[in-house]
Amino acid sequence: MAGLTASMEALVGALKKLPGVGPRTAERYAFFLLSQPATFARELSQAVLRVKETIGFCRVCYNLADEELCAICRDPARDRSAVCVVEDPRAIIAIEKAGSYKGIYHVLLGALSPLDGIGPKDLKIQQLKGRLKAGGIGELILATDSDMEGEATALYLVKDLKNFAAAQQLQVQISRLASGLPMGSAIEFADQVTLLRAMEGRRSA
Amino acid sequence: MAGLTASMEALVGALKKLPGVGPRTAERYAFFLLSQPATFARELSQAVLRVKETIGFCRVCYNLADEELCAICRDPARDRSAVCVVEDPRAIIAIEKAGSYKGIYHVLLGALSPLDGIGPKDLKIQQLKGRLKAGGIGELILATDSDMEGEATALYLVKDLKNFAAAQQLQVQISRLASGLPMGSAIEFADQVTLLRAMEGRRSA
Repeated sequence: MAGLTASMEALVGALKKLPGVGPRTAERYAFFLLSQPATFARELSQAVLRVKETIGFCRVCYNLADEELCAICRDPARDRSAVCVVEDPRAIIAIEKAGSYKGIYHVLLGALSPLDGIGPKDLKIQQLKGRLKAGGIGELILATDSDMEGEATALYLVKDLKNFAAAQQLQVQISRLASGLPMGSAIEFADQVTLLRAMEGRRSA
Repeated sequence: MAGLTASMEALVGALKKLPGVGPRTAERYAFFLLSQPATFARELSQAVLRVKETIGFCRVCYNLADEELCAICRDPARDRSAVCVVEDPRAIIAIEKAGSYKGIYHVLLGALSPLDGIGPKDLKIQQLKGRLKAGGIGELILATDSDMEGEATALYLVKDLKNFAAAQQLQVQISRLASGLPMGSAIEFADQVTLLRAMEGRRSA
């Protein structure tokens, strides 16, 4: 870019690769970095490196982990009889922020998507069955996304896991998150499918 | 943040300090970094460090420079008789992108702002006078921002530099960027001051 030094150009070029960051935002970040004390640049630089160096997947649940087990699987206070099944470690962060869930997790690391060539074998379903078989799990909560892939994955899992539980003579309750109107929203802005689900799922008051 | 590893928390914490980046955007950037090959993390990490290590101000014009002189002052093709005076190195990038200006620059590194305690001595005005006195400059183009501080700075500079040029018997033409309607905008959305300036500055067609 005209008028930038080589090192600024390199930084803007790298920042531009972040999702949703265009040339102007990248420039803004770069100039901000330049205006900060060197300690901040060192802090950011090391944090970026360390994430790639230290993070792997939890051996049990495939959440992000910087040890063999993730922080949740290590936590002795969690209820090991309930397992919440999610597509992505990001979903765990959202559920943990909500704060009410005290069980543990299983991350599928994806969702079924035939168009992208992602089938059941590409997800951590075998590993989930392994955990069920090892015993001690009384409830599975399927918390896949409510988009097409997530719905398909949940439908597939319900059928597959019920068959598996029956064949293995396991007593496991399988549930899905409630669908309905998001809190704080107006009915007039809800889409048809959401309204349909909210009607179907109505509860006596 | 619950559910994040220590190294992800550190990265999200550092990214959150970037301007306009909240916790969600920081998480998005962090997960993106995690999904990329380690080469990208190394590239970004090094670019962040190098910017703070290598960049200083140009000895002549106070633009950003990774050598003693900035890329523009080093360029033998630039017209050294025209000097465009800006508040900030960022303004140079914008003018260079527009692409028509072939002269050199002088960065004030700020604008007059009595409320923030920034007076003429805090800007690189003495250094600009030094360049004028050294000779060879026929035109000064004042390109300060069109906000209150930038306008005040331009008004001050016009008076101060005209006095200086007269005292030193220098022939320097001083001009300011045209004010008016920005291209591609509708008159109905223009503010009153801009319309006033556009009227005052009208040209025969």
